[in-house]
Amino acid sequence: MRAGFSTAEIVAVGSELLTPYKSDSNSLYLTSELNGIGIDVREKVIVGDDEHDLTAAFREALARVDLVVLTGGLGPTADDLTREVVAHVLGLPLDEDAAILASLRDRFARRGLTMPEINRRQAQVPRGATALANAHGTAPGLWIPVHEKVVVLLPGPPRELKGIFETYVLPRLTERTASRRLRRRVIKMTGRPESHVEEIAQPLYSKMAQWRIPVRTTILAAPGQIELHLTAEGADVEGIDRTLEEAVQTLSSALGSIVFSTDGRSLQEVVGELLRLRGAWIAVAESCTGGLVESRLTDVPGSSEWFVGGVVAYANAVKVEQLGVPPDVIERHGAVSEQVASAMAAGVREKLHADIGVGVTGVAGPGGGTDAKPVGTVAIAVTGEPPRTFKFLGDRNMVRLQATQAALEMVRRLLLSP
Amino acid sequence: MRAGFSTAEIVAVGSELLTPYKSDSNSLYLTSELNGIGIDVREKVIVGDDEHDLTAAFREALARVDLVVLTGGLGPTADDLTREVVAHVLGLPLDEDAAILASLRDRFARRGLTMPEINRRQAQVPRGATALANAHGTAPGLWIPVHEKVVVLLPGPPRELKGIFETYVLPRLTERTASRRLRRRVIKMTGRPESHVEEIAQPLYSKMAQWRIPVRTTILAAPGQIELHLTAEGADVEGIDRTLEEAVQTLSSALGSIVFSTDGRSLQEVVGELLRLRGAWIAVAESCTGGLVESRLTDVPGSSEWFVGGVVAYANAVKVEQLGVPPDVIERHGAVSEQVASAMAAGVREKLHADIGVGVTGVAGPGGGTDAKPVGTVAIAVTGEPPRTFKFLGDRNMVRLQATQAALEMVRRLLLSP
Repeated sequence: MRAGFSTAEIVAVGSELLTPYKSDSNSLYLTSELNGIGIDVREKVIVGDDEHDLTAAFREALARVDLVVLTGGLGPTADDLTREVVAHVLGLPLDEDAAILASLRDRFARRGLTMPEINRRQAQVPRGATALANAHGTAPGLWIPVHEKVVVLLPGPPRELKGIFETYVLPRLTERTASRRLRRRVIKMTGRPESHVEEIAQPLYSKMAQWRIPVRTTILAAPGQIELHLTAEGADVEGIDRTLEEAVQTLSSALGSIVFSTDGRSLQEVVGELLRLRGAWIAVAESCTGGLVESRLTDVPGSSEWFVGGVVAYANAVKVEQLGVPPDVIERHGAVSEQVASAMAAGVREKLHADIGVGVTGVAGPGGGTDAKPVGTVAIAVTGEPPRTFKFLGDRNMVRLQATQAALEMVRRLLLSP
Repeated sequence: MRAGFSTAEIVAVGSELLTPYKSDSNSLYLTSELNGIGIDVREKVIVGDDEHDLTAAFREALARVDLVVLTGGLGPTADDLTREVVAHVLGLPLDEDAAILASLRDRFARRGLTMPEINRRQAQVPRGATALANAHGTAPGLWIPVHEKVVVLLPGPPRELKGIFETYVLPRLTERTASRRLRRRVIKMTGRPESHVEEIAQPLYSKMAQWRIPVRTTILAAPGQIELHLTAEGADVEGIDRTLEEAVQTLSSALGSIVFSTDGRSLQEVVGELLRLRGAWIAVAESCTGGLVESRLTDVPGSSEWFVGGVVAYANAVKVEQLGVPPDVIERHGAVSEQVASAMAAGVREKLHADIGVGVTGVAGPGGGTDAKPVGTVAIAVTGEPPRTFKFLGDRNMVRLQATQAALEMVRRLLLSP
């Protein structure tokens, strides 16, 4: 058991979160923010709009942790129960807050509407609680001190939740957690499987768990990407940061050039930064990835400083006419070949007047595979580097994701070469 | 309270699921499958690799529902606790299963390895439980009957979990739920805000909740897309399906042409199907969306039957040289204008020999906005239709998503026009 104000539970409320179509994404944001100030999320619970279930979940959470954050169920309709259930469990009467009511009426009036009576519920505040103004919606948040513990209620829509959390909740929590902090570093890698990373990293990080300031390590795998998450905590923030830096350095040098980021940046951000530093412009020609390499690059704010554009050459005629791929190269080697990938890369570089050209062609599936070139076969070329052929496993989506990752990694390696 | 074997709780185990970086995606799959055979998911809990927390979560779940599904924590290492905790709470001794042990040893031997002693734990089975073979990994699943209830343990990796669930768990559960089923239909819309949909739909679906077979309705909003989820349940599967069909028909005709799908298909799938039926080929020129429209289209298997390709024209030179946009049109109206969008659409249609051309140009942000054309301004043109200018709210990602949605919707409307 950890000392002080250090543990939290997140209770997400809403029947839609118990369907196959919607997952609770707010808790990832909240976890990140809470971890940052040294609060561990011990458990997450998702309950429907059900008085009985919500009552039980809230009671159990309150018994377990220092901070209970409830999200959702603060709307005006009959199935929004969070405010009432929390007040009832805590034995607090609900008072109507005149200021909130006025601001709700005003909000409607500004749009030329009269506030429906049903919205009055959103002006109710459990006695002793503080209402937290919502700049983006009608439901205010609530901060309820319960002896040494705290209960926080936040509306479900992410923009409303984030606004209230940043403005009111985070500063108040930071006071309570004093100087104890939990810090996290992430090492991101590509190009090798999880088992390869684990073999090198495990002997090192198992020792780090015994350091004076212990470092905890978790390994995560996504399509084409492996991540090591390192955490350490305590009051000595500088010591923690130094320790984590040492851990990152030790692991990174052991893992070598497969590490592309130790500061949270994505592969496209790293590639973009390298292009910017080199003053180089890139252009992309893609077939099986169908725009995904380009959409990842343009996902980076400011990409217009180093990304010229590209061509999605799905039909062979586009490869020939727009990129100048010789038809006989396609005929001789097939559209999925290193020769065609190279011609696409060279073609898009020349036509779009870029410094670096990228060409991607492959079989994403489910159809189109042959014995020689099964689904998952992808040829990738970056001008100035030898082309490569990959055999990716998984469905269409997995193949496409891994192919974009491999293409970006080849660009990164080119930009790092002397 | 519902009768029979009808309620479930999912307990996801793993400290990595309590970090800001990983969410529990297995539960969406499990919910979908359980709903399909009439089992409601009442609650979802996520706990770390902690004996105390896991014990409490499992006890509470078992008290609440008919079926408890625990995922994760079945690995060979010391922090994998699920098997032991469940056996302990149920008061069942763990026996080593010789057949599982032999198959584990064999699995390692086939790769030329000796099984580490630590993996022996994975051959332990609570007395009275049935081990469920794992075709894709070492940890078998477990099926444990507890009086009228059932506890199921599944490994965390999605491929392993799905394999075991489909092969062994689903058929056994289907026996228990007899013929009672829960069915779901989804109406997807775009082009109007949630409040507009709610205003039309609410009076209708509130009546449907009173039908002989009641229909429950939930409204969900995503960037550029609103969805109505309709569910009904009971023993009379044909009656349920007829009732849901009637509900879908009633709501769809009231909502009109903003409805693009009532059978689960995405907007790009609907557009692709319309193109295929019309025998029309499409080509796309995009600037601010940077390949996202094209990557959504090529996300559809078989898109090579109707998608020619496209040009990502980030730099103005690419708009001019590759798409034939007249430089003076850019100069006079600005790169973000209906004139440029129209020239891009016409240009890509002509250069790529397509039947339909699409042009998208806008300010995705965070930089690049002006008073006249703030961040979120996007001009979209589809050949044969008048161009439109949109003002989207939200961050770069939201603007890009809404712009792709609007572009695909304009194509859909063109294809539906006589």
